Amino acid sequence: MTSLFQRLKTDCADEWCSYTHHAFVRGMGDGSLPEAAFRDYLVQDYLFLIQFARAYALATYKARSLSEMRAGLDGLKAILDVEMDLHVRLCAKWGLSTVDLETTPEKPQTIAYTRFVLDAGQAGDLLDLYAALAPCMIGYGEIGKALQKHATPDNPYAEWIAEYASDGYQEIMAASIANLDALAVDMLTENRYPRLKHLFSQATLLEADFWQMGLDAEQDEK
Amino acid sequence: MTSLFQRLKTDCADEWCSYTHHAFVRGMGDGSLPEAAFRDYLVQDYLFLIQFARAYALATYKARSLSEMRAGLDGLKAILDVEMDLHVRLCAKWGLSTVDLETTPEKPQTIAYTRFVLDAGQAGDLLDLYAALAPCMIGYGEIGKALQKHATPDNPYAEWIAEYASDGYQEIMAASIANLDALAVDMLTENRYPRLKHLFSQATLLEADFWQMGLDAEQDEK
Amino acid sequence: MTSLFQRLKTDCADEWCSYTHHAFVRGMGDGSLPEAAFRDYLVQDYLFLIQFARAYALATYKARSLSEMRAGLDGLKAILDVEMDLHVRLCAKWGLSTVDLETTPEKPQTIAYTRFVLDAGQAGDLLDLYAALAPCMIGYGEIGKALQKHATPDNPYAEWIAEYASDGYQEIMAASIANLDALAVDMLTENRYPRLKHLFSQATLLEADFWQMGLDAEQDEK
Amino acid sequence: MTSLFQRLKTDCADEWCSYTHHAFVRGMGDGSLPEAAFRDYLVQDYLFLIQFARAYALATYKARSLSEMRAGLDGLKAILDVEMDLHVRLCAKWGLSTVDLETTPEKPQTIAYTRFVLDAGQAGDLLDLYAALAPCMIGYGEIGKALQKHATPDNPYAEWIAEYASDGYQEIMAASIANLDALAVDMLTENRYPRLKHLFSQATLLEADFWQMGLDAEQDEK
Repeated sequence: MTSLFQRLKTDCADEWCSYTHHAFVRGMGDGSLPEAAFRDYLVQDYLFLIQFARAYALATYKARSLSEMRAGLDGLKAILDVEMDLHVRLCAKWGLSTVDLETTPEKPQTIAYTRFVLDAGQAGDLLDLYAALAPCMIGYGEIGKALQKHATPDNPYAEWIAEYASDGYQEIMAASIANLDALAVDMLTENRYPRLKHLFSQATLLEADFWQMGLDAEQDEK
Repeated sequence: MTSLFQRLKTDCADEWCSYTHHAFVRGMGDGSLPEAAFRDYLVQDYLFLIQFARAYALATYKARSLSEMRAGLDGLKAILDVEMDLHVRLCAKWGLSTVDLETTPEKPQTIAYTRFVLDAGQAGDLLDLYAALAPCMIGYGEIGKALQKHATPDNPYAEWIAEYASDGYQEIMAASIANLDALAVDMLTENRYPRLKHLFSQATLLEADFWQMGLDAEQDEK
Repeated sequence: MTSLFQRLKTDCADEWCSYTHHAFVRGMGDGSLPEAAFRDYLVQDYLFLIQFARAYALATYKARSLSEMRAGLDGLKAILDVEMDLHVRLCAKWGLSTVDLETTPEKPQTIAYTRFVLDAGQAGDLLDLYAALAPCMIGYGEIGKALQKHATPDNPYAEWIAEYASDGYQEIMAASIANLDALAVDMLTENRYPRLKHLFSQATLLEADFWQMGLDAEQDEK
Repeated sequence: MTSLFQRLKTDCADEWCSYTHHAFVRGMGDGSLPEAAFRDYLVQDYLFLIQFARAYALATYKARSLSEMRAGLDGLKAILDVEMDLHVRLCAKWGLSTVDLETTPEKPQTIAYTRFVLDAGQAGDLLDLYAALAPCMIGYGEIGKALQKHATPDNPYAEWIAEYASDGYQEIMAASIANLDALAVDMLTENRYPRLKHLFSQATLLEADFWQMGLDAEQDEK
């Protein structure tokens, strides 16, 4: 049986490509991305993580079994106990202090994607919630892996790339795919698929907008 | 294809019977139900309706299309604009004032069923919510119809019976069944069915407890 | 005692001005707004209304009393039973069919504002939800009234202006202000005010972005 | 300034007493509680904990700051990573297997209290949610401490008593009181207090019903 994630990716190939091969991503890959764009992205990504932690809390609340609760809790811990600290350290290397992170307002693109996911999760069920989370969780692993193949050691974004290409993150990515596929086996019907595809497509486009936000910020500064 | 409601009713035949043929129901049918039990039930049913209106508001929020929103709104209007008034008038005939209705606390059985439905709806999707609402919406129509066959004109509960046996309510019941079946065509998988059956079974038992609450109240008064 | 709405508007004067005096608004006022910008806005505003109806359904679910439930239901009916039809008719005059309305995807700005409101409402209480809804409900009345003062009869946007300057809408606006103030009397503390101001400020900026979306769409078409 | 918890406890003294001095509690204290009652309670308390973990997940989702999110996550971890295991071990000593725990249906009293808390939390804000959780979190610590004073070493319920009288749990209790008081400083108004008191009173009575459930189960077995 086809994996739900593979099916979604195939059926939303254009959106997926516009996200995973976005100019921002290519700029990280060849090191040409303006640093101002990356800094803007880093701060917004910190604010993004806070909302994503809320999404995993919601997944834990909506779980239908202890094992689903523990899966949600694992995601929540991964963000609040590990990723936030990694992020703060990476930001520090780029000259961004905790105060910068905590006092910068969320940009509309950050709001759009995170609140879309949270609302999709509240309105629907666990499958809807994880489908809306998938572009982020899975896409970052795919991007990290792809960029690492050609990244040179002096690439200023090498640490970001290494993080998402790491075995640790690749395992998280594999678990996300497996989780989505398992929920699909349980709960997906052909009649439901078009709505799920729409959710995934929308979330993927909002991720592409999130990259674009970084590029636009750098343009605005000029 | 089998109707989801018929399937649920068949698979939960014992629970369904304990609810629709409860001693309280039989007592309404032959007029032997102590009036104190009925009065206690009437007040709690008013408090129940308020929470059921909240459940239809939740269904409207969780709707995935304009037509589903309008279906939720119809349910909400039916309760807040029509049924509440009918209920207040019926209560008045039984000597229960609006003040009685508004100042009586909810009993545990009222809380158990209503909050179970609301939580099932928030945690799951529209199909979960309507499955948890079904025993009430559909069961009352079935009970009204069954009691009317043998009800004598001097039955003190004739007005209650007539209300739920009425063409108006029978149409609401038919629409509830059709709505549940339509959602099932869209979203039900065999893997999901056992959980849905559990929801329905639990909700049905909590409805039976709701009848029992009336009988117990009458015992306590003695 | 100061009205909460007046206080929020004063404390967020810059954001409020950027929204209520946006170039899009000024362009409607003097008739100079490109028609393509208005058409783009009309379609997105239809999609926006659907999500706003969901927000009123959520308010009804979150109500703490029957009168609060009826207030939420009134808002929900106003949108689903009246405004949607008005909107479809206005769209038809601008050459936009129901099919156009139903098949156009939501733009990021539409998603950002509507999902922000819905999430604020789910995460917080009724006061949070209505504070996030306020810029839309109240701002449109203020804009309609202000534009009407100088609008000439041949203004192509006269019908839109008349709608929101109408006695009917002005009453809805007054009721929204009164509702917000009443909730504040009940539930607002000074410690809580900064968060509420942040919510209102954010929602107001997202409304300004919504106007900008119309202007950008017209630029893109060129 | 008075602690919110102390105020609630004083204003709901009868309800609080009916819960913390319930016959079930007294029976644990002097060792006279029938073992069958305790076993029934243990199984339902396991099912109760699952729903309480969902309530802490909800609190994490509804948090308004990172520190509130971490507080919610701490509660969630305490239940899923620690208490559940303790509970399973205690149950094993009483001859209850994991299969017993996982296959026993929730009783109406378990449903009533847990779903009441979850719905209060979804409908209201963080203060409402924690007020509804307080009788459980704080009451158990108070009961444990009180019973320990007079418990003899051969008391069959000594392990349960020691658990809730332990320094570890007493710290959790103190943190719950402090958390509730801090939220009150931020968000409590006198106009809001009566509703909060009602929530607390209702939750306390549902806790008393939960003890009664154990006693009733033992009666039914006879």
